[in-house]
Amino acid sequence: MSRVATWSEIEPALAGVDLLEEMSLGFQAYSAGDCVVPPVGELLLEESRGEVHIKYGYVRGGEHYVIKIASGFPGNPALGLPVGDGLMLLFRQDTGALARVLFDEGHLTDERTAAAGALASRTMAPPTVERIGILGAGVQARLQAKHHAGVFPDAEFMVWGRDAEKSAACAAELSGAGIPARSAEDVERLSRECQVIVTTTAAKESLLASDWVQPGTHVTAVGSDTPEKQEVEVTLLARADKVACDSLEQCRLRGEVSQALRAGAISEEEVVELGAILSGDAAGRGSSEEVTVCDLTGVAVQDLRIAEAVNAALA
Amino acid sequence: MSRVATWSEIEPALAGVDLLEEMSLGFQAYSAGDCVVPPVGELLLEESRGEVHIKYGYVRGGEHYVIKIASGFPGNPALGLPVGDGLMLLFRQDTGALARVLFDEGHLTDERTAAAGALASRTMAPPTVERIGILGAGVQARLQAKHHAGVFPDAEFMVWGRDAEKSAACAAELSGAGIPARSAEDVERLSRECQVIVTTTAAKESLLASDWVQPGTHVTAVGSDTPEKQEVEVTLLARADKVACDSLEQCRLRGEVSQALRAGAISEEEVVELGAILSGDAAGRGSSEEVTVCDLTGVAVQDLRIAEAVNAALA
Repeated sequence: MSRVATWSEIEPALAGVDLLEEMSLGFQAYSAGDCVVPPVGELLLEESRGEVHIKYGYVRGGEHYVIKIASGFPGNPALGLPVGDGLMLLFRQDTGALARVLFDEGHLTDERTAAAGALASRTMAPPTVERIGILGAGVQARLQAKHHAGVFPDAEFMVWGRDAEKSAACAAELSGAGIPARSAEDVERLSRECQVIVTTTAAKESLLASDWVQPGTHVTAVGSDTPEKQEVEVTLLARADKVACDSLEQCRLRGEVSQALRAGAISEEEVVELGAILSGDAAGRGSSEEVTVCDLTGVAVQDLRIAEAVNAALA
Repeated sequence: MSRVATWSEIEPALAGVDLLEEMSLGFQAYSAGDCVVPPVGELLLEESRGEVHIKYGYVRGGEHYVIKIASGFPGNPALGLPVGDGLMLLFRQDTGALARVLFDEGHLTDERTAAAGALASRTMAPPTVERIGILGAGVQARLQAKHHAGVFPDAEFMVWGRDAEKSAACAAELSGAGIPARSAEDVERLSRECQVIVTTTAAKESLLASDWVQPGTHVTAVGSDTPEKQEVEVTLLARADKVACDSLEQCRLRGEVSQALRAGAISEEEVVELGAILSGDAAGRGSSEEVTVCDLTGVAVQDLRIAEAVNAALA
């Protein structure tokens, strides 16, 4: 059954993949209108026990289509199990033949999300980045730091989380892995010292105030992917010289952009897609003093690109 | 990877499963309103190259949810590949954990469809069945004969297909497997001689005329599962003393019932669900002289029941 791969096989294969390049190609195809992505399928279990999302789609003219199944069961940690699980299925576009099953346990979603964050920061950050601030101290915070360290090898990291102990543990773990990091006492301090800020929490009220953010800062907002979640004050998006997102269609309804649109802080015409900046169809940062924001909510083409890249690396 | 099973492992496990009982429990749960079945997900490839359907759902209070992925690629036979492929994924309702992947290549869908047909005939046929007629001479015709032979061990079979050679081959194959069968010259002859008629073709115009069907006949209509396909004259449904179907919601839009409703030949109030007959909530056949019809379009709870039964047999 060579077509089935578990995380222990996927992880080493992933190490050889240029994930930022994969995400870049994916976002460009998406913004060029080359993707077919039907509505997300959703299965809700009884008594809010859990929920399952089925995301699927393909790039026209490509080799594969992907079907990703991801679940979240909030009661799992009490049973010693991870909250989330996931797998990806890759099929050939010409015959429907199953090319690969990736039992990635959701790790590929975490990785593609972090790589997209680092790509957004690489694309929109000011020329000089000395310090990068991460809000959140969980799995996604660690992965964002890892991928940002690849883009900004000389930068130091500051980590802030609601739980000071967890922030310290996260910073220590990163430092131990060769990524210089320390924990921040509060978000204000972090904001005033960092030229790139990455938000990875599940907050439902703004954590990052516009007043704290210095000129010449880029914010990559990753945590909010629903209509309710919010990490960034809408006034920061209003103030920003450039607001980008992964998918205009999706960000009308979800994420920081949707919050700012609903609040009337920005208009849709002010928002550009990251894929359009990457392809040169839209302008990105205009000067080193600008404030920029990129809102990422996650699109199926990211799953397709990472699954295809892993599949090729395994072959 | 004990959680992954291929058809070579599934087929022997299936042999020990009482599929008609599984289908009966499934239809009863469905008709009692105990099932959660979101809309079918659909992915259409470019240039009508192929289509993919994602069916998923669960029975409230049950152990698993199922996600079935089935594809049809019309150009595959020219490449020496089967048109259809499929797999089923079974997850635990309490944790979302993947319980089993069944790489069944679509065989489980064929089997559950045939078992449902035999169950419908067992439930609605007249007391004495000497001959069973099958319209169609393909995979589903063979499987319907196999499952009907289990229910009606003393019956003879007649097979009719558009291609006389294929009909003869199908009848010979069945006879060779210990199921007495001969091919029929035409549908009228078959209809006049059989007390149970099972339709398994992809016809888009009626094959079975009401006038040919004798009193005391039951028809199980399996082939039509879209708004366009039709195998049975709508006047037969109008004439029938009892019309049943697997899912009223689905049969409003698809299958023989939808044809008869659109033609004004029957009204929705005259149609009952097979699950309701099985549970005793609705009446079935009233006398040995009645004409009855059961229209099957396929529901996700059948996939769930067969996948759970195979999973248990493999464990």
